[in-house]
Amino acid sequence: MSLSEIIRRPTLLIDRQKCLENIRKMVVKATASGVTFRPHFKTHQSAVIGEWFRNAGVEAITVSSVAMAQYFAANGWEDITIAFPVNGREMSDINRLALSVRLQVLVSSAVSLRMLLDEAISPMGVFIEIDTGAARAGIEPRFVSEIEHIIKSLESGSLLSFAGFLTHAGHTYAAQSPEEILDIHRQSVGQMLGLKQRFALHNPLISVGDTPSCSLAANFEGVDEIRPGNFVFYDLMQVALGSCRPENVAVAVACPVVAVYPYRSEAVIYGGAIHLSRDFILNQEGVRMYGGIAVASGSGWEFLPGTNYVSSLTQEHGVVKIDSNFMKSLKPGDLLLVVPVHACLAAHQASYYLTSDGEFIQKMPPLNP
Amino acid sequence: MSLSEIIRRPTLLIDRQKCLENIRKMVVKATASGVTFRPHFKTHQSAVIGEWFRNAGVEAITVSSVAMAQYFAANGWEDITIAFPVNGREMSDINRLALSVRLQVLVSSAVSLRMLLDEAISPMGVFIEIDTGAARAGIEPRFVSEIEHIIKSLESGSLLSFAGFLTHAGHTYAAQSPEEILDIHRQSVGQMLGLKQRFALHNPLISVGDTPSCSLAANFEGVDEIRPGNFVFYDLMQVALGSCRPENVAVAVACPVVAVYPYRSEAVIYGGAIHLSRDFILNQEGVRMYGGIAVASGSGWEFLPGTNYVSSLTQEHGVVKIDSNFMKSLKPGDLLLVVPVHACLAAHQASYYLTSDGEFIQKMPPLNP
Repeated sequence: MSLSEIIRRPTLLIDRQKCLENIRKMVVKATASGVTFRPHFKTHQSAVIGEWFRNAGVEAITVSSVAMAQYFAANGWEDITIAFPVNGREMSDINRLALSVRLQVLVSSAVSLRMLLDEAISPMGVFIEIDTGAARAGIEPRFVSEIEHIIKSLESGSLLSFAGFLTHAGHTYAAQSPEEILDIHRQSVGQMLGLKQRFALHNPLISVGDTPSCSLAANFEGVDEIRPGNFVFYDLMQVALGSCRPENVAVAVACPVVAVYPYRSEAVIYGGAIHLSRDFILNQEGVRMYGGIAVASGSGWEFLPGTNYVSSLTQEHGVVKIDSNFMKSLKPGDLLLVVPVHACLAAHQASYYLTSDGEFIQKMPPLNP
Repeated sequence: MSLSEIIRRPTLLIDRQKCLENIRKMVVKATASGVTFRPHFKTHQSAVIGEWFRNAGVEAITVSSVAMAQYFAANGWEDITIAFPVNGREMSDINRLALSVRLQVLVSSAVSLRMLLDEAISPMGVFIEIDTGAARAGIEPRFVSEIEHIIKSLESGSLLSFAGFLTHAGHTYAAQSPEEILDIHRQSVGQMLGLKQRFALHNPLISVGDTPSCSLAANFEGVDEIRPGNFVFYDLMQVALGSCRPENVAVAVACPVVAVYPYRSEAVIYGGAIHLSRDFILNQEGVRMYGGIAVASGSGWEFLPGTNYVSSLTQEHGVVKIDSNFMKSLKPGDLLLVVPVHACLAAHQASYYLTSDGEFIQKMPPLNP
């Protein structure tokens, strides 16, 4: 059966070849730079896709929740960093997990340290999260005495070991050009290397990694590991940022067309906020785009011009602007391929994936109480 | 155990009393107006909460997908309208479902009619979806001959029966005041009553319903049924629209605080886009708010002032603006109650709920291939 015959509902498609190529390129770049490649698995949340990484030589991973760490540990991953401020309410799960895998957690503000010192009863590595400008979580590098206090406290016991400094330069997502992304990357790495030098006696690892930086930077001098996640799929936002080319995007949500309104130059698809997320980018006219449109081509797909795009989303409905040329051939029952603005959220919301060669892919199951 | 002792991760809390009161008030209003109350169950997607409606006398429901119709049919609901343009790719499921329950589907553009006529092999009611200004799905009332053609085609066979006209005046969500919502409601109902009169020979039912209109309108003269959904929970957007008062909001996402940055007047919570959705409203200064903040009070909660709000969201992180007064008492490990901007999306993303009296509530399971 062809994909079109299989698909009844909005379905996240993965172009396996593009995905494998995205993985391969990042492996090559990390190897050439002599850094550990610890990809962030929050983007795909799938043990099957995890195997694609393992086959490419990856042995260490990053996740964004304790539940995700448990899922990948159960699927054979033995070196896991939970790149999220340690959550005191999950310490019993964290302690249990640290008995079976090599686990690293994050201290993101000094006030969390006491809880970790008091409640950790298994050995684990601890990164100090550094805020190099994203202003999300982490300690700013200027707070040197706070950082020193944390390192000394960690080293005074035997269970917790100071692993190094970790940052997510998420402010690259607000950059206006690839040059600005590289500037942010250089500034962020510069701050991290300053800390590495200052605390050299403690042998800190330097862990960085956001997809825009890791995609655009030619090398990672002085850095010990990189943790990009989104690059495995890429998306419309990454294309807009210049992190990748349209043909590198490995995901699209296949959405049934359920109504066409030629006089409005619009179609309605079964594919809404619960399939694509409400993330948007602005097109050249400043209009919100909730997804790009592609058509099947060979075993994959090709983008249609930017005059075709998802212009609004409600829970299950998407309204799609269709140019007059494409409208002629469109009818209810057709499938439109929507390239998501933000692949991580679109993938999170899918309960399974389908590869472009017809394999259904399982992912992490939903959480129970 | 108190709720605070149970909760480890972001958890959608339901204030059962407020929820029951929201249901009761809408039942009373529908009864007083002599209209059928066919609530939209896409908001809660839970058989347990469905029973709360059944106990209040509700017998007919609205859903937004075939899968949701199957779920509620399996939980004893026998009169279901799928208020979404009929999806030709799910006709075998629709036909099967129509054998076991009284099912109504929507024709939203004339081009879908042929598919329905050709492929329906079970008896079902068909509403013509009318676009009264929301510009999402539906036929504009001015296309009278198209509407007439659909009615006659439906009546020419024996399996499909013409049920009436259905609209969702979703443009109320863009209104700037309660008066504007009521204006939109009147205009929308006016268009529907024009069609009712014009096609009086065919005895069309008139089905309307969006939460802002249904919350604010005093009565529903000439209308046959209302289908609001969001009102069962309400949310920050509905408060901003004037559909409800802050104390009517029956949901909040309990989020662990994982870092505090007093010098930034910010805290970081475990609670991100995958828990709250990326929907936002603008505050009085034009700044994006991704959620309001509340504190526990009695068996429920109370809103904190608007100087405390979720200012940004990534996949799992929320950054919360905290005023100096509240900051003094806040520390990692605390729970913050976030009142979602859009309860439907926040509830959709939860895999279970927790009532404020400590009961875990199951909802519709994720879809399988």
